[in-house]
Amino acid sequence: MARIVQKYGGTSVGTPDRIRAVARRLIARRAAGDDVVAVVSAMGHVTDELVDLASAVCKTPPDREMDMLLSTGEQVSIALLAMAIHAEGHDAISFTGPQVGIVTDPVHGKAKIQEVRGDRILEALAEGKIVIVAGFQGATTDGQITTLGRGGSDTTAVAVAAGTDADVCEIYTDVDGVFTADPRIVPRARKLDSIDYEAMLEMAASGAGVLQLRSVEFARNHGVVIHCRSSFNDNPGTIVKEADSTMEQAIISGVTHDTSEAKVTIRDVPDRPGVAAFVFTRMAESNVNVDMIIQNVSEDGRTDISFTSPKTDLVRAKQAAEAVVAELEARTWSVDESVAKISLVGAGMKTHPGVAAKMFSTLAEAGVNIDMISTSSIRISCVIEGDKVGTAVRALHTSFGLDSEAVVAEVSPGCGEEV
Amino acid sequence: MARIVQKYGGTSVGTPDRIRAVARRLIARRAAGDDVVAVVSAMGHVTDELVDLASAVCKTPPDREMDMLLSTGEQVSIALLAMAIHAEGHDAISFTGPQVGIVTDPVHGKAKIQEVRGDRILEALAEGKIVIVAGFQGATTDGQITTLGRGGSDTTAVAVAAGTDADVCEIYTDVDGVFTADPRIVPRARKLDSIDYEAMLEMAASGAGVLQLRSVEFARNHGVVIHCRSSFNDNPGTIVKEADSTMEQAIISGVTHDTSEAKVTIRDVPDRPGVAAFVFTRMAESNVNVDMIIQNVSEDGRTDISFTSPKTDLVRAKQAAEAVVAELEARTWSVDESVAKISLVGAGMKTHPGVAAKMFSTLAEAGVNIDMISTSSIRISCVIEGDKVGTAVRALHTSFGLDSEAVVAEVSPGCGEEV
Repeated sequence: MARIVQKYGGTSVGTPDRIRAVARRLIARRAAGDDVVAVVSAMGHVTDELVDLASAVCKTPPDREMDMLLSTGEQVSIALLAMAIHAEGHDAISFTGPQVGIVTDPVHGKAKIQEVRGDRILEALAEGKIVIVAGFQGATTDGQITTLGRGGSDTTAVAVAAGTDADVCEIYTDVDGVFTADPRIVPRARKLDSIDYEAMLEMAASGAGVLQLRSVEFARNHGVVIHCRSSFNDNPGTIVKEADSTMEQAIISGVTHDTSEAKVTIRDVPDRPGVAAFVFTRMAESNVNVDMIIQNVSEDGRTDISFTSPKTDLVRAKQAAEAVVAELEARTWSVDESVAKISLVGAGMKTHPGVAAKMFSTLAEAGVNIDMISTSSIRISCVIEGDKVGTAVRALHTSFGLDSEAVVAEVSPGCGEEV
Repeated sequence: MARIVQKYGGTSVGTPDRIRAVARRLIARRAAGDDVVAVVSAMGHVTDELVDLASAVCKTPPDREMDMLLSTGEQVSIALLAMAIHAEGHDAISFTGPQVGIVTDPVHGKAKIQEVRGDRILEALAEGKIVIVAGFQGATTDGQITTLGRGGSDTTAVAVAAGTDADVCEIYTDVDGVFTADPRIVPRARKLDSIDYEAMLEMAASGAGVLQLRSVEFARNHGVVIHCRSSFNDNPGTIVKEADSTMEQAIISGVTHDTSEAKVTIRDVPDRPGVAAFVFTRMAESNVNVDMIIQNVSEDGRTDISFTSPKTDLVRAKQAAEAVVAELEARTWSVDESVAKISLVGAGMKTHPGVAAKMFSTLAEAGVNIDMISTSSIRISCVIEGDKVGTAVRALHTSFGLDSEAVVAEVSPGCGEEV
């Protein structure tokens, strides 16, 4: 008998029919003898409707009241799922985040989980019940309702698994697991059977959307084994856990890409000490997240500084760049929104020199120009022209021996680039 | 400076526009120097939508999970109202029932409030905030979410007023206060300036829909002054409080009517000791509420037993009557759904003999036949034919000197009887 935490997202519980399907899946697992805890998100459309209501009464709603409002979405889901299980003649009990002792810091809208008290869940499991927990929400020590922000339900699931000492945290998605590349771009992408936390973190941070970065960090910090799998079938997915001797020691786990960032360049900045510090202090003050940075070789005491930033921060980035140009008496600034970042991720990279060289020559042979480069010990990222993403990712996938023998996916149109 | 609790129902917060109107009303009161607490219901349509969702996943949802589901309705309202107040530049904070220490018994779906801990509300008031509390909900001592059932938000408001030692609990409705009769039936009905708890209890119990019986009981038990008034204007409404020398000592406070009950008759029951006990034990076992009872004079050792019961209990009442007829070897049973109960209520009745006689002769003169009679120390009720309700109520209203000089309301069509 195992103790299992399963997480279902907003699409999986988006209609009464789908809620009933999740109920049957949970019941089957319970009937097989396992202790089952489900963590669920708000029904797909509900959060948007609540946000619309909020904007109808207030342009800038206080974060505390947004949390009060949005947390009702998951509460509806857990009640309905518990009812659907009862309708099938099985016993279930639902809990809100605050009820089940998910304690967070008081940062409304993006609270961090500090503790999960597992005792209430364990009691209900001991009574033979299927336990349903609201994702995305918690409470401060003085009882304020908080929400965890993007990817919060994944983090709740991992935290509940940690708090109840569960054997595995199964995160159900609309894909079969973690792939060596996005199958919409690389038809010969392979599903990974397993991946260690560090590589998964780099994959998540560099564009693999299947698991949220925060939930993987939480899993690593608390030793929770994640099983990332499809809600449409019973196939095994991808296990995310501590590296060990049984795990395949791939040099490269995958090739990721990210087209959500833009490149900002500030031209002909005076090349003197402290200029870079000045630029990025201004960006931080303007709440602009900065990812990669390059500074060109100086000519005539002038240099160019470029950085990438999420497109969602671009309005603020442009305003800050305008101000920086004036303050530093630089020549001008420009923005390129048609860039893409591609990354090679792999724990084996540490002990295999030459990966970077091979990556650069592969891209050169494919006719892809490299604009910016950054590296970590297990990742190499390059910024390239946006319309070369497909070409570049496929070339790297083949070059590093990641192609599967079978084509596992049709290339889907409409992923924003020529394929 | 006074401390005021205001209660707004589902219609008053039914749309973003109406929520903004309630926000402005609260702000005006706060600006006038009073401490203001608002208790609100779910937005008009929300509870129905949640009930529909529940029935889509489960035919007989567990009461605990229904409470988990339905309590989200008020949580949405309080968050939106707090936001609307912030949008006007004022400070507000919302609390769920559990957060604010509304402790109930564990009877899900119709929990009773056992205690309201006022300290959290008082703290927020001391910080100058307008406090918004979710009506209709509470939590057990072990943190289960409960709902209070019908009229729950009124009771929450009165309980919050008791728990915070408020000067008055203002209950906003769609009428101007408590009237001597339903103005839709009696155009010359008068609004009462004040009424004592006992008379208000009898009025509420016998058909005056404006205040819920439970909330009046709670107010009487805790000495909370209720001000029942209109949400459409600023006119004074009706004050409900302990009888005192300043209050008008009317012999009759009002004439109420109730068409929500049906009459069940069991015919030719053997007239022996214990028969009535048997009948009403069976009804109680079938969860049938019984209001008035008469037993006819026995003829040939056989008698008829009639009682009134809410039409909502009628399916169960018929099944129970069928069984009773078989068990007692009675002749048959019948149901009359076209009956009405009219009541005269007034504290002065205790000390004024002859009220009953005058009531009966007034009805006789109006050609209204009396079917059943019951009395308390300050109320006389008669069951009559349903299509005579308007005639009977108007005759009594005139006969007991309750008519106002002005016609305060148009007789509205469609109140289910000839007028």
